[in-house]
Amino acid sequence: MGRKWCLSFSCELPVLYSYFRSSCSWRVRIALALKGIDYEIVPINLIKDGGQQFTEEFQTLNPMKQVPALKIDGITIGQSLAIMEYLEETRPIPRLLPQDPQKRAIVRMISDLIASGIQPLQNLSVLKQVGQENQMQWAQKVITSGFNALEKILQSTAGKYCVGDEVSMADVCLVPQVANAERFKVDLSPYPTISHINKALLALEVFQVSHPRRQPDTPAELRT
Amino acid sequence: MGRKWCLSFSCELPVLYSYFRSSCSWRVRIALALKGIDYEIVPINLIKDGGQQFTEEFQTLNPMKQVPALKIDGITIGQSLAIMEYLEETRPIPRLLPQDPQKRAIVRMISDLIASGIQPLQNLSVLKQVGQENQMQWAQKVITSGFNALEKILQSTAGKYCVGDEVSMADVCLVPQVANAERFKVDLSPYPTISHINKALLALEVFQVSHPRRQPDTPAELRT
Repeated sequence: MGRKWCLSFSCELPVLYSYFRSSCSWRVRIALALKGIDYEIVPINLIKDGGQQFTEEFQTLNPMKQVPALKIDGITIGQSLAIMEYLEETRPIPRLLPQDPQKRAIVRMISDLIASGIQPLQNLSVLKQVGQENQMQWAQKVITSGFNALEKILQSTAGKYCVGDEVSMADVCLVPQVANAERFKVDLSPYPTISHINKALLALEVFQVSHPRRQPDTPAELRT
Repeated sequence: MGRKWCLSFSCELPVLYSYFRSSCSWRVRIALALKGIDYEIVPINLIKDGGQQFTEEFQTLNPMKQVPALKIDGITIGQSLAIMEYLEETRPIPRLLPQDPQKRAIVRMISDLIASGIQPLQNLSVLKQVGQENQMQWAQKVITSGFNALEKILQSTAGKYCVGDEVSMADVCLVPQVANAERFKVDLSPYPTISHINKALLALEVFQVSHPRRQPDTPAELRT
């Protein structure tokens, strides 16, 4: 992940604006690791100083005031799935999407189920609005509701991983969402398929190097 | 939209499970119209009988208990963006995504901003949890926050439409979201770019035939 020796301006590394605990940042870190893309991290602390995503400087970069954002090939892309689709189109191997269009559709459906149907409803900004005393219950409810659907879908699509035996964008979305579920103390016993796939994925190197506990901005007491 | 004469099983029309007012269903109706794909609609009323999306039969079809879902080519796909990506890959012309990978990234970023960053936070199931008396204020807050970002982004990407002068997936997401904003009485005057693009898009036939006011399940008093 260190900067490589480089003789021209054009070999500038991609820059990922990331927060160690952000599940959407983790998605992109997994994708970059999977594709073997070297990059630099600029940590954006979503808590400190009232949230570094709200600075003038960061807003210019990403008006959504969210991480992740990736500077690459002269553009800045926000939204983790849009970033992954771009990486897939410009650096196709190893694949994040299967070759068969129908399998691609299933991978994207699972990814969107997590990225639109679960994560946004339990992210930091929503929890702030829900109020401290209701946060845990709210998060548990939305994750449980999403996982009920996800478990059913995965029962018919999964092999070793979410869709068959190849790691895909769906897996990249799954693992950080399961970590969120654990953080909010969701009972995972009704979800054997989700749990099984999650365990298999966490054993892979690319899910480990990208893990929230191993980032440059991970606080010392959370490191492993 | 009527069933065409057909001599074999394989020319069965795609079936869209849709609710007239669902903004995600509208997205898919626009995409189908844009690509000139003939289809049948099965209306799923999200309000009546406590919500027809909760029936045993519909849950088997889409465990997320949400519309839209599209039965096509022998599979059923949920999640509007996954559906659109599948249509784009299997019926590429006319395009929903530009050819240039960087422009595709921008189109997907805008689409995801709406589909993950705005719509899920103001959909029916969340508003139910927020409670009747807070719904309007909640919806206004999340839409305003998203539109502040969107307006800034569009100022640098827009031509006639969201990204340049060709209709794309970003436009397909924009129009139904603006309709939601109007329904929740969001003041649109701070968003001249959004408003301008929305007006240009609503003048197009494909946005009109797919409009919530012109669906088979639109109540008589809302029809135009």
